[in-house]
Amino acid sequence: MPRILLSTQRFSCPARRFLSTQHSSNAPKVVFSGIQPTGVPHLGNYLGALRQWADLQSSASPSDKLIFSIVDLHAITQRQAPEALRLHRREMLAAILAVGIDPNRSIVFEQSRVPQHAELMWILSCGASTGYLSRMTQWKSKLGVGEDADAFASGNNTPRLKLGLFSYPVLQAADILVHRATEVPVGEDQAQHLEFTREVAGTFHSSYGTVFPLPKTVLSPARRVMSLRDPLQKMSKSDPQPPSRILLIDTPEEISKKFQKAVTDSEEGVTYDPRARPGVSNLVQIYAHMQRRTDFHNVANELKDCTMKELKDKVAGIVIEGLRPIRDEYERISKEGDRYLEIVAEEGARKARESAEETMVLVRHAMGLA
Amino acid sequence: MPRILLSTQRFSCPARRFLSTQHSSNAPKVVFSGIQPTGVPHLGNYLGALRQWADLQSSASPSDKLIFSIVDLHAITQRQAPEALRLHRREMLAAILAVGIDPNRSIVFEQSRVPQHAELMWILSCGASTGYLSRMTQWKSKLGVGEDADAFASGNNTPRLKLGLFSYPVLQAADILVHRATEVPVGEDQAQHLEFTREVAGTFHSSYGTVFPLPKTVLSPARRVMSLRDPLQKMSKSDPQPPSRILLIDTPEEISKKFQKAVTDSEEGVTYDPRARPGVSNLVQIYAHMQRRTDFHNVANELKDCTMKELKDKVAGIVIEGLRPIRDEYERISKEGDRYLEIVAEEGARKARESAEETMVLVRHAMGLA
Repeated sequence: MPRILLSTQRFSCPARRFLSTQHSSNAPKVVFSGIQPTGVPHLGNYLGALRQWADLQSSASPSDKLIFSIVDLHAITQRQAPEALRLHRREMLAAILAVGIDPNRSIVFEQSRVPQHAELMWILSCGASTGYLSRMTQWKSKLGVGEDADAFASGNNTPRLKLGLFSYPVLQAADILVHRATEVPVGEDQAQHLEFTREVAGTFHSSYGTVFPLPKTVLSPARRVMSLRDPLQKMSKSDPQPPSRILLIDTPEEISKKFQKAVTDSEEGVTYDPRARPGVSNLVQIYAHMQRRTDFHNVANELKDCTMKELKDKVAGIVIEGLRPIRDEYERISKEGDRYLEIVAEEGARKARESAEETMVLVRHAMGLA
Repeated sequence: MPRILLSTQRFSCPARRFLSTQHSSNAPKVVFSGIQPTGVPHLGNYLGALRQWADLQSSASPSDKLIFSIVDLHAITQRQAPEALRLHRREMLAAILAVGIDPNRSIVFEQSRVPQHAELMWILSCGASTGYLSRMTQWKSKLGVGEDADAFASGNNTPRLKLGLFSYPVLQAADILVHRATEVPVGEDQAQHLEFTREVAGTFHSSYGTVFPLPKTVLSPARRVMSLRDPLQKMSKSDPQPPSRILLIDTPEEISKKFQKAVTDSEEGVTYDPRARPGVSNLVQIYAHMQRRTDFHNVANELKDCTMKELKDKVAGIVIEGLRPIRDEYERISKEGDRYLEIVAEEGARKARESAEETMVLVRHAMGLA
């Protein structure tokens, strides 16, 4: 594998504080994190997850195990067009490598190649309460019903609610537990699921004895990147307007153009006030995050005399420079072709199957299934 | 493998009619059937399922594929003591071999060794409606709630209803579809699940194109064997009274004793009237089934002058003779030891994984997961 420039090496790093707290214990850690195969990631995916993965990799002890999964079995809880899913899995894998995840150091794999995830999911589902699941919010937001909706009481939801979407948190628990992960970096919206994972593990243990470590939630500092077209919405792959998002492989010209079109407001000067000035504040946040800063008021103050055009140029400039090595690496990987990515995917899957099978041997034995 | 005496070769066989209807088409068939690992089977398991498996095997065309599964992943929808489950899986496997299933002809395997079952279960669950599942009767009878109970509307059920039990029919669909079975012999109480299997397959096809044959229900002639202690209940492994059931490995003495203790009534003579004389009628049915007869009234008429003692002696005698080769074979297999059964189980699992993987390659490709 070629050496890959880590973007994380290019900035001073106050955000590392968060990483160092993970090293309080000296026992080898097993870090698990997953991302959906949405194709080439956007800036929000990068700042919210992928950059953190690269950070985790560069700060990990040699004995720590890092496991990063493209969770395609979660993606299919909503119907996916097969050709698109195939492409998006490949693109996500290439992007993960491009941001600096080294498949010789970390295990990078597609979930659907590791059947132990579904196998443990079934086993855990035998102890998971449907009552708890029916109160989870994930399926409610995906179905677009209110948080107080009941899974089954209201006749309207039942035909639409598919078992996979309803059961999703149990597969997520299996993803984590099947690798006996000790730490799981998640956003705040996922903390509920990790709590559920610990509960599911506890239920298993009380029936069959202890097999899993109880995984610790590692809350990532919130890095919400908002749409450039509607700064009240999160930047998203599903937004029909491509200028609403920066992709990791956008050219400098595309990045400049998208920022020029970014929705701001008609006030003069730059301030940080997400409520009153969401568009401007989003640009300030992006500018800060690219430098690994979270002191948004200070950053805004440093930019206070800029015109909107100057602000946009500055943000575009720092994003272009920050993403340049990723884009170059992505291009290099793409030139290697699908065959290369297939080898990386299969090799990662082999290691993940090995990791998962070690756990399943214990699980099956504990249950009398072996 | 030694040649195994088929008990099916020992009786004239009017019940074969049922089998021959399966041969109307000349395309190779794939027959799938499963049984829970409840330990050494009782007479009800034998007459209701295992003898039929042996019949299917002996009447199959050479090109037909026969797949028989010990469905331990279903067993765990209710908590199982690990040591008991381990023992019961072994005993069921030994019994399947003892009734004449030849592992060189049929694929005999433990479900938990074939992860493709759980893998396809997850995939199918993404298209399976929770509404439909909440109306199924299986979980209701296991929880002991009425057939009109709603999975989630009534607050009482939710904490007790586990996801595994609720999702059970989807795993059952996966069991069948993952081997692209064309025929599934089931009892009438399972016909609802096979209907669901076809529906799940149809949903998959409408999203991703045709992969699965729609499996045909092969209704087995009902062979309900009732408890010898309470002829209104089915003979069952979970009955706390061992004399309520005949096990396939009971000694002649045990069989005689259990039949002597069988609950009948104080009327004189033998008639067939399940409603008014359930105990006597159960004995008549057993006597008939052991000879592959279903003309219970005629059978009762042939026995009409028997006293209860004579009837019990006759039934015990025919059961003892019918089970003798099975018991002998079971004993021979037991003497070969666990190592032998482990080899059979692993070899069966290898073939089942091969069969299932052929299907999963098609499934993953159709969905964009490969």
